[in-house]
Amino acid sequence: MREQINYRIEKDSIGEKRVPEDAYYGVQSLRASENFPISGTAMHSEMIVSIVEIKKTSAITNCELGLIDKKIAEAIVKACDEVISGKFREQFIVDQIQGGAGTSINMNANEVVANRAIELLGGEKGDYSLVNPNDHVNCGQSTNDVFPTCGRMTVYKLLKKLEIQLKRLYEALIKKSAEFDDVIKMGRTQLQDAVPIRLGQEFKAYSAAVERDISRMQRAKDEMRYVNLGGTAIGTGINADEQYIQRIVQNLAKISGLNLMQAFDLVDATQNLDGYVVVSGIIKSCSVNLSKMANDLRLMSSGPRTGLGEINLPPKQNGSSIMPGKINPVIPEVVNQVAFNVIGNDLTITMAAEAGQLELNAFEPIIFYKLLQSVETITYAVETLVDNCIEGITANRERCKFLVENSVGIITAICPHVGYMKAAEIAKTALNTGKPIRTLIIEEGLLSEEQLDIILNTEAMTKPGITGKAAVG
Amino acid sequence: MREQINYRIEKDSIGEKRVPEDAYYGVQSLRASENFPISGTAMHSEMIVSIVEIKKTSAITNCELGLIDKKIAEAIVKACDEVISGKFREQFIVDQIQGGAGTSINMNANEVVANRAIELLGGEKGDYSLVNPNDHVNCGQSTNDVFPTCGRMTVYKLLKKLEIQLKRLYEALIKKSAEFDDVIKMGRTQLQDAVPIRLGQEFKAYSAAVERDISRMQRAKDEMRYVNLGGTAIGTGINADEQYIQRIVQNLAKISGLNLMQAFDLVDATQNLDGYVVVSGIIKSCSVNLSKMANDLRLMSSGPRTGLGEINLPPKQNGSSIMPGKINPVIPEVVNQVAFNVIGNDLTITMAAEAGQLELNAFEPIIFYKLLQSVETITYAVETLVDNCIEGITANRERCKFLVENSVGIITAICPHVGYMKAAEIAKTALNTGKPIRTLIIEEGLLSEEQLDIILNTEAMTKPGITGKAAVG
Amino acid sequence: MREQINYRIEKDSIGEKRVPEDAYYGVQSLRASENFPISGTAMHSEMIVSIVEIKKTSAITNCELGLIDKKIAEAIVKACDEVISGKFREQFIVDQIQGGAGTSINMNANEVVANRAIELLGGEKGDYSLVNPNDHVNCGQSTNDVFPTCGRMTVYKLLKKLEIQLKRLYEALIKKSAEFDDVIKMGRTQLQDAVPIRLGQEFKAYSAAVERDISRMQRAKDEMRYVNLGGTAIGTGINADEQYIQRIVQNLAKISGLNLMQAFDLVDATQNLDGYVVVSGIIKSCSVNLSKMANDLRLMSSGPRTGLGEINLPPKQNGSSIMPGKINPVIPEVVNQVAFNVIGNDLTITMAAEAGQLELNAFEPIIFYKLLQSVETITYAVETLVDNCIEGITANRERCKFLVENSVGIITAICPHVGYMKAAEIAKTALNTGKPIRTLIIEEGLLSEEQLDIILNTEAMTKPGITGKAAVG
Amino acid sequence: MREQINYRIEKDSIGEKRVPEDAYYGVQSLRASENFPISGTAMHSEMIVSIVEIKKTSAITNCELGLIDKKIAEAIVKACDEVISGKFREQFIVDQIQGGAGTSINMNANEVVANRAIELLGGEKGDYSLVNPNDHVNCGQSTNDVFPTCGRMTVYKLLKKLEIQLKRLYEALIKKSAEFDDVIKMGRTQLQDAVPIRLGQEFKAYSAAVERDISRMQRAKDEMRYVNLGGTAIGTGINADEQYIQRIVQNLAKISGLNLMQAFDLVDATQNLDGYVVVSGIIKSCSVNLSKMANDLRLMSSGPRTGLGEINLPPKQNGSSIMPGKINPVIPEVVNQVAFNVIGNDLTITMAAEAGQLELNAFEPIIFYKLLQSVETITYAVETLVDNCIEGITANRERCKFLVENSVGIITAICPHVGYMKAAEIAKTALNTGKPIRTLIIEEGLLSEEQLDIILNTEAMTKPGITGKAAVG
Repeated sequence: MREQINYRIEKDSIGEKRVPEDAYYGVQSLRASENFPISGTAMHSEMIVSIVEIKKTSAITNCELGLIDKKIAEAIVKACDEVISGKFREQFIVDQIQGGAGTSINMNANEVVANRAIELLGGEKGDYSLVNPNDHVNCGQSTNDVFPTCGRMTVYKLLKKLEIQLKRLYEALIKKSAEFDDVIKMGRTQLQDAVPIRLGQEFKAYSAAVERDISRMQRAKDEMRYVNLGGTAIGTGINADEQYIQRIVQNLAKISGLNLMQAFDLVDATQNLDGYVVVSGIIKSCSVNLSKMANDLRLMSSGPRTGLGEINLPPKQNGSSIMPGKINPVIPEVVNQVAFNVIGNDLTITMAAEAGQLELNAFEPIIFYKLLQSVETITYAVETLVDNCIEGITANRERCKFLVENSVGIITAICPHVGYMKAAEIAKTALNTGKPIRTLIIEEGLLSEEQLDIILNTEAMTKPGITGKAAVG
Repeated sequence: MREQINYRIEKDSIGEKRVPEDAYYGVQSLRASENFPISGTAMHSEMIVSIVEIKKTSAITNCELGLIDKKIAEAIVKACDEVISGKFREQFIVDQIQGGAGTSINMNANEVVANRAIELLGGEKGDYSLVNPNDHVNCGQSTNDVFPTCGRMTVYKLLKKLEIQLKRLYEALIKKSAEFDDVIKMGRTQLQDAVPIRLGQEFKAYSAAVERDISRMQRAKDEMRYVNLGGTAIGTGINADEQYIQRIVQNLAKISGLNLMQAFDLVDATQNLDGYVVVSGIIKSCSVNLSKMANDLRLMSSGPRTGLGEINLPPKQNGSSIMPGKINPVIPEVVNQVAFNVIGNDLTITMAAEAGQLELNAFEPIIFYKLLQSVETITYAVETLVDNCIEGITANRERCKFLVENSVGIITAICPHVGYMKAAEIAKTALNTGKPIRTLIIEEGLLSEEQLDIILNTEAMTKPGITGKAAVG
Repeated sequence: MREQINYRIEKDSIGEKRVPEDAYYGVQSLRASENFPISGTAMHSEMIVSIVEIKKTSAITNCELGLIDKKIAEAIVKACDEVISGKFREQFIVDQIQGGAGTSINMNANEVVANRAIELLGGEKGDYSLVNPNDHVNCGQSTNDVFPTCGRMTVYKLLKKLEIQLKRLYEALIKKSAEFDDVIKMGRTQLQDAVPIRLGQEFKAYSAAVERDISRMQRAKDEMRYVNLGGTAIGTGINADEQYIQRIVQNLAKISGLNLMQAFDLVDATQNLDGYVVVSGIIKSCSVNLSKMANDLRLMSSGPRTGLGEINLPPKQNGSSIMPGKINPVIPEVVNQVAFNVIGNDLTITMAAEAGQLELNAFEPIIFYKLLQSVETITYAVETLVDNCIEGITANRERCKFLVENSVGIITAICPHVGYMKAAEIAKTALNTGKPIRTLIIEEGLLSEEQLDIILNTEAMTKPGITGKAAVG
Repeated sequence: MREQINYRIEKDSIGEKRVPEDAYYGVQSLRASENFPISGTAMHSEMIVSIVEIKKTSAITNCELGLIDKKIAEAIVKACDEVISGKFREQFIVDQIQGGAGTSINMNANEVVANRAIELLGGEKGDYSLVNPNDHVNCGQSTNDVFPTCGRMTVYKLLKKLEIQLKRLYEALIKKSAEFDDVIKMGRTQLQDAVPIRLGQEFKAYSAAVERDISRMQRAKDEMRYVNLGGTAIGTGINADEQYIQRIVQNLAKISGLNLMQAFDLVDATQNLDGYVVVSGIIKSCSVNLSKMANDLRLMSSGPRTGLGEINLPPKQNGSSIMPGKINPVIPEVVNQVAFNVIGNDLTITMAAEAGQLELNAFEPIIFYKLLQSVETITYAVETLVDNCIEGITANRERCKFLVENSVGIITAICPHVGYMKAAEIAKTALNTGKPIRTLIIEEGLLSEEQLDIILNTEAMTKPGITGKAAVG
């Protein structure tokens, strides 16, 4: 029944165009949606909220300063509140990956807000003499300050969610490190038997890395706090009232509830995008820690019979369509993949940031697309990691103990007492003959049983100090 | 009205779980959808078609060999055909980014097909005694051969679409190169004035690069043709009938209409993913050519008054929310961004391919997610580039001519006649005094007017041969 | 005359091997040099200094605690001081890209120091009964705490040099921004004419970006300050005396003159390498700013006759072997390339950091190779950028002025007075007819000459405020 | 004794400059060496050979066509032959990372060859009236065709060396696959026990991947064969004689012994660098296969007591400075690191290739630096991998057998006989109780001893066919 769609005619500098009669978006949104059929995905919903928060703040600020009529401002504010509350989201029709430095999404917002405001004032959609997308909704603004500000606000919001999940992960790891504090197991370097360690120490080490990641989130948020709103087209503030420029970011901070500040140099803030590179770098660094931990969890839980088999991950789903009973480390695997995704996204962000030219970087759309995806996928990955993996991990205590006792790595503790060369010789013999280290040392008369009881105490080996030196000295 | 949902109970090795009564997916899909709430996006629709084509082919092949009942096979085939035709797509509920090496999407397909087949046989969804997702739908298969095969088929299909758009681009560029063959303009190296070139030569050069990209698409498709179906769990073909192994890929080629071959070494084909890295590398190389061309189009159309201004891109939308009349190169800009996206995706693909371990690479889900996105976004970017940019480009002939005549780069043509050092001296004087090269040479008595008429013929300068050497010799 | 080389025989766990008689390195260094003929480059000289500073500190600390003889300790310290002062550098024969997690370079240092100490004590090189590379020089240490500490110290030292050059760049840019403060030129967004800006504002913006980079250097250094020395093999401190562990980093801080601290969790610090990823991310972000600036310098200096021609870079060398008089922006070009190098290195560092397993990351050799190269090449690139480019830049004031006056971008300032649609219409007419904006507005009777004098003041346009609104209101 | 250096004065467009009297390089090389103190490394020696082969070929061709005097041409050819034979290498003083699109290295070659030719003709170095670096040595050329051609020749030469090492690796792997053909071991997917495989099959799979890499080397070489020599400044061939353009590449092929062809579109070949991206992508793909294999070797050799312990790598050096007797997988580790290096280099190459503008890509210096390093480091890594690792690998047959027999993964072979659900139940019971699969099946009366003898034949499980289906029917 497509013939039943009615259209209104809208006009812009390019010419006239039919717009569906009941659409809140207008001619410019429509052109953009036709120009950029790239990813097939719409703008992130938090981006829509952020941009409309800017529109609302501008209307209020312009009204305070007498730059637009109160009646119009009120209609704009009401329209914005409706969008923020979740309405009209399907009216944001432009693709996330778009040319034009964000002008299309800015105009999409301007048109939706304008048409809804027109309606609220009793007018007909498309009658921009009542509320004009450019002259009223966009008053005092340019895409070049609105879009970057909108992006930074959104990243900021999502970083706060990531921070919450990282803190949950930290707590879960700390809890496990306490639970496993007495599980002595073999430490491995370069996948080769090294010296004993406690499983709790390993989980503590993961938590320490996550703690660093959490502390870096504060830096990441600081990088996003400084916005260029008020700079308009190129940071010089052309066409924006001086009072407006001074008030707009403070007002936006209030309305959005975010701790925003105006950038010191608005020309710089409009063209240099190093902040996103730094934030992405921090997220990437976090993903590196997570991926390394996921790799360890997969290694330590390898088996059940022919791997290391030191820990068990909670079974979450059948592991195979052909191999019955197989359980796979699916949650760590998804963490690894999200890390690879974040690292790839970091590259796209870096290239886009590098490609800015003169007064503007036109490639923020792809930066926001990738950066939001990085922050969100890692947030969700951490959440499922905590809930569906870390909390349910159990230790195979007997297996861990058996491996330590069966190992020749404990020779290291002997080293300070007999010298490196002699110790190496004994280790070699132990491996070739299968004889225990202890037996060989007794046989060679190097140390006494009593001395060995002290030196080969595996728990002592997991703590600082030349094991038993004083005691045996 | 959530309370109105009725549930059936399903059971797997993990335990029992409620599944919505009218769902075609089953317990395993449901667990996976809960374990991986990562990207929020469902499997690509072409992936669904490919995997169901495999299920259909398996049922037919198993039936031919008497390994499953004809009645069951026919129900499976019918269920598959329905999915292929577009039904039940919303029943594929697992996230694109998933752990488990694709087991979840494979089981999702097995469950949907099984439940629909059960229904067709008059049974109730969930009654897997009639048609079993593992024993029947997955018969002779493993996720580890099904999922890679499904991914390769899908990449293959999408590469064919990209090839079509690249050919359109090639044609459009060739057409422009003919149209602009007589437009003499200044060539620039390192953004500095070099020597004259024809605008047509520039578009011809772009077309030559695209021609190489097209020829590489054949290689890319060849990399994807070889599939590991028949290898089952680890490439050794365990649990698959020998006859089945021999027939399955040929049958799949027929049913899918794709020119597929079985890989020579199925163990290798199950664990080594270099093929995707090569394909992504080819796509990346193509994106590099496109991005370079996009950069040139943006440079040459810079202006309209304070840039190079040599060409005009067709205006496609208003360029600014604050600067009236501004038109931006939005289509090349989206091409640049897609290129950055493809390059970032290539990295994720590379890392995932590198991370395989022993008999399997568990990270194919993220590889397919990224590779399909790369191929598709570049396909759409090329399409909009042709339709909304290349075809409408016009040349500013007068401007091009003025710049050539105003340049000192033509001194290069003088060089063979007076030597490098003397020519450099004249060029310097020309720049400092603003005097034309021609005048300076005449003043110095180096060459005659007649000689200069021949030597300084700018069109001749755009073709091989020491300009006018013979003529003036 | 190869036959004249005399050899001594050395022995390790692998067996016996001939070592050149006059070599200070020993059997283990020699094996490593044969195993890793990869890059053909030796360890960075600052790495050699750092590792030997650790050896010296250890000898002193072990001596304080009575763990090694004073005579031996003194010989070790003297040997170390000689290396630090520049001697024996050719004795460090292992390749920068090496397997073994740095054991080879650690043993190379142990052997060189031991053999020189033996010599100082009157012994013969190779007689490790006097001073043993493992038992004495490496006493209380493991490669796994020595090598990471050595790497961090070295990065720290090089970061300080980078910081100095970045500060010089900042000063040079600030100076230029003052010099060019009154040069009004056309601002461009997306390479299209936007609104006027002052050239000084542009250089100020570059300086603001560099200022952020400088402030991030502090963070980068902080990431490198925390070292894992004292953790020995896996961070548990096995075989190191408790007192040694407590004193060693403080002593190292004194001896190296660097503000080092011991990491809180030595197990974590031995296996998680996120710190390098963060530092590389900060360097990368800096390189993005520099590359963007280099791109702008190349754009603004494009010409001399057929480009933008707004500024002149100082000519540093002939630009072409064929085109006389051509001068190219060679310094910005090398900055771009160094940026690409840094960005690629960042990826290698990221992958290596992600690949750690269990108690150790074995891939620090490639991390240090790449990270040191990144920091150093960018340091040198900034130095040549300041000395050979920024300081010598001059402005083409007349050209800048001409372009602004010839532009239609000034229409933006008219917009608040006549509305977006009307302004867009006038801009279009201006472009099509070539008539000045001013004339068209007068012709249409929209504003008076007096109003336009205020509104079209280009200097005013480069500052905040609705241009002339009050004045013309 | 610095005061003893004598200087000659040389002059170029920038001005006069002192050059050491005995230097073969001239003023332009000297300026470049001062402008680019970046990496501290000189041009690759194969690059020097290639560029001088071009100079020699040009002199010969120009002489054939009467464009330069025979006496001068002969002196140039002789000078070139001396450089090719290894002389004067220290006269190439410009840094590998340089701005100016290669002009500096081209002029360095021009100056060295000219000064040596001058000397051979009895003149004094610096007297360019005898042999001029630009007018004679560079006759008919531009940096813009010389440098890319030189780079392609060099990559081509190095690819041939890589190919040789890859073939050696292939042979070594094939040999091992035969040696290990009867070693039955547990296959693992996602690091979890899967189904049996033969160790020989695993090495065969590695060889199959390497075989693909070898076949792609042909493509890589094909990408490098097409050179733009003859295109001069921008591909239009300005200032080169038509005959020269036609003959030059054929002559170069003869003189260099490489199968070179002239690119079809010289304008394209001068500005589009996709070929390097493709070659780097192929090298990268190869490095991904090698890194995956290295990871597997490290996993399978993990232990000796607490890891998988299935194979032994030959011990090549002591593994630890603190842990006696420890042997590490140092060769695979260096392979991993080289792979990370290659992948990072690929990114730098990609970014540099993307950054070309209009008639030239000025960033070839960094591309060649990185690409040559990638090809060479991977060549050396493969060489050491073959010699110091693969050839010496031994299998722990008993350990492999023990693990298979101890595993529950063999349940998969039971699956076709009892159904997936029942099989999963038995597997679970086996894991929980420790009872063998066989016992449980007998206890449940599902299959007879005789049937199980056939079904649970582990060797049969490593080959296609539903294990024992027919036999047990």
